[in-house]
Amino acid sequence: MSTKPVSIAVLVSGNGTNFQAIVDAIESGRIRNAHITCLVSNRADAFAIERAKKHNIKSFVLDHKNYKNRMEYDTAMVEILQRHNVQLVVLAGFMRILSSTMIDAFPNSIMNIHPALLPSFPGLDAQQQAFDYGVRYTGCTVHFVDSGTDTGPIILQAVVPALESDTVNTLTKRIHGEEHRIYVEAIGLFCDGRLRVEGRKVTIAQQTGCATNLL
Amino acid sequence: MSTKPVSIAVLVSGNGTNFQAIVDAIESGRIRNAHITCLVSNRADAFAIERAKKHNIKSFVLDHKNYKNRMEYDTAMVEILQRHNVQLVVLAGFMRILSSTMIDAFPNSIMNIHPALLPSFPGLDAQQQAFDYGVRYTGCTVHFVDSGTDTGPIILQAVVPALESDTVNTLTKRIHGEEHRIYVEAIGLFCDGRLRVEGRKVTIAQQTGCATNLL
Repeated sequence: MSTKPVSIAVLVSGNGTNFQAIVDAIESGRIRNAHITCLVSNRADAFAIERAKKHNIKSFVLDHKNYKNRMEYDTAMVEILQRHNVQLVVLAGFMRILSSTMIDAFPNSIMNIHPALLPSFPGLDAQQQAFDYGVRYTGCTVHFVDSGTDTGPIILQAVVPALESDTVNTLTKRIHGEEHRIYVEAIGLFCDGRLRVEGRKVTIAQQTGCATNLL
Repeated sequence: MSTKPVSIAVLVSGNGTNFQAIVDAIESGRIRNAHITCLVSNRADAFAIERAKKHNIKSFVLDHKNYKNRMEYDTAMVEILQRHNVQLVVLAGFMRILSSTMIDAFPNSIMNIHPALLPSFPGLDAQQQAFDYGVRYTGCTVHFVDSGTDTGPIILQAVVPALESDTVNTLTKRIHGEEHRIYVEAIGLFCDGRLRVEGRKVTIAQQTGCATNLL
């Protein structure tokens, strides 16, 4: 594989369980060729910051209340990310909409995970939306971020059955387990240089020759 | 089980492969307790009419061009269905939108199958829509018909992976196989009296005592 690890920034607003899953996957070698160079939170009290400290990951608090508008906020964000030569931005429960300032700075290199089988149930409370609709299957989606709400090119999806015995909580928990799994997989594919985007379609390149040694 | 079979009408516009799957399932006993009392087509040249003849199923051509508006058309349809004491209306590629005249006459007893995992990709060309969007999973949905387009309470769904090697045709074929399977299953559940609808939620009752003899 390539020599220099991919520089990843993770953006959070809260607990950071997906952030933790990614950290663990890098430390255990399930994601190779990657290094989390910074964590950015828009909230000073995000528990994810404690998690970062434990793993000696540099963290920044970028409080949106200190900025006049979304563009100014995103300009400050881009500045931090570029200073760390970030190649992949991973949204892990970051509760802010990104402006074109961010999206144009990182084309097809901002990933988000959404707790539904997009394009079903975009936006907030996706699990509740799916529960209320009465679907038999829901799941989660890792996608590149574009200017729409949860509309970007799909990288991976996982399917989760919605059982008649489910509450929103049990359904959410089952989806959450799959989120960790496919987010780690998608980030690994990116860091191995195996994702190609053409229009809306993401294709996954076969592993190259040398990678067979690593299996 | 109950003694009198459930009277089913199947509505078609064309080839009728789902109609054939239902006929076969009744004849082979996979759907019990059901009898197709009539086939209605809005086109005289629908191949499904030939299929009906082969199986001695009465068929009617109700050409929409002979009616002033949707309501008059649907009134004629309801008249035919009520004359046959129809309890379940099954749409099998019937390319007409139903008015409230039909829907009010058969509350929660009109079934449709849609070739996508609703609420994703409602309306026409669902497989093409899913293909173009670049989803990793799609499928099909059996639902009760309400006044919206493909919005009614979901009875069953089946998941089909969309492969990078797929064309719209190969994807459509794979979905079609699952359509036959879950449509037959959903009709069987209805005829066994096992479907309950509350708001948007459809629940499937456990089989009753005597049914264990039939397993």
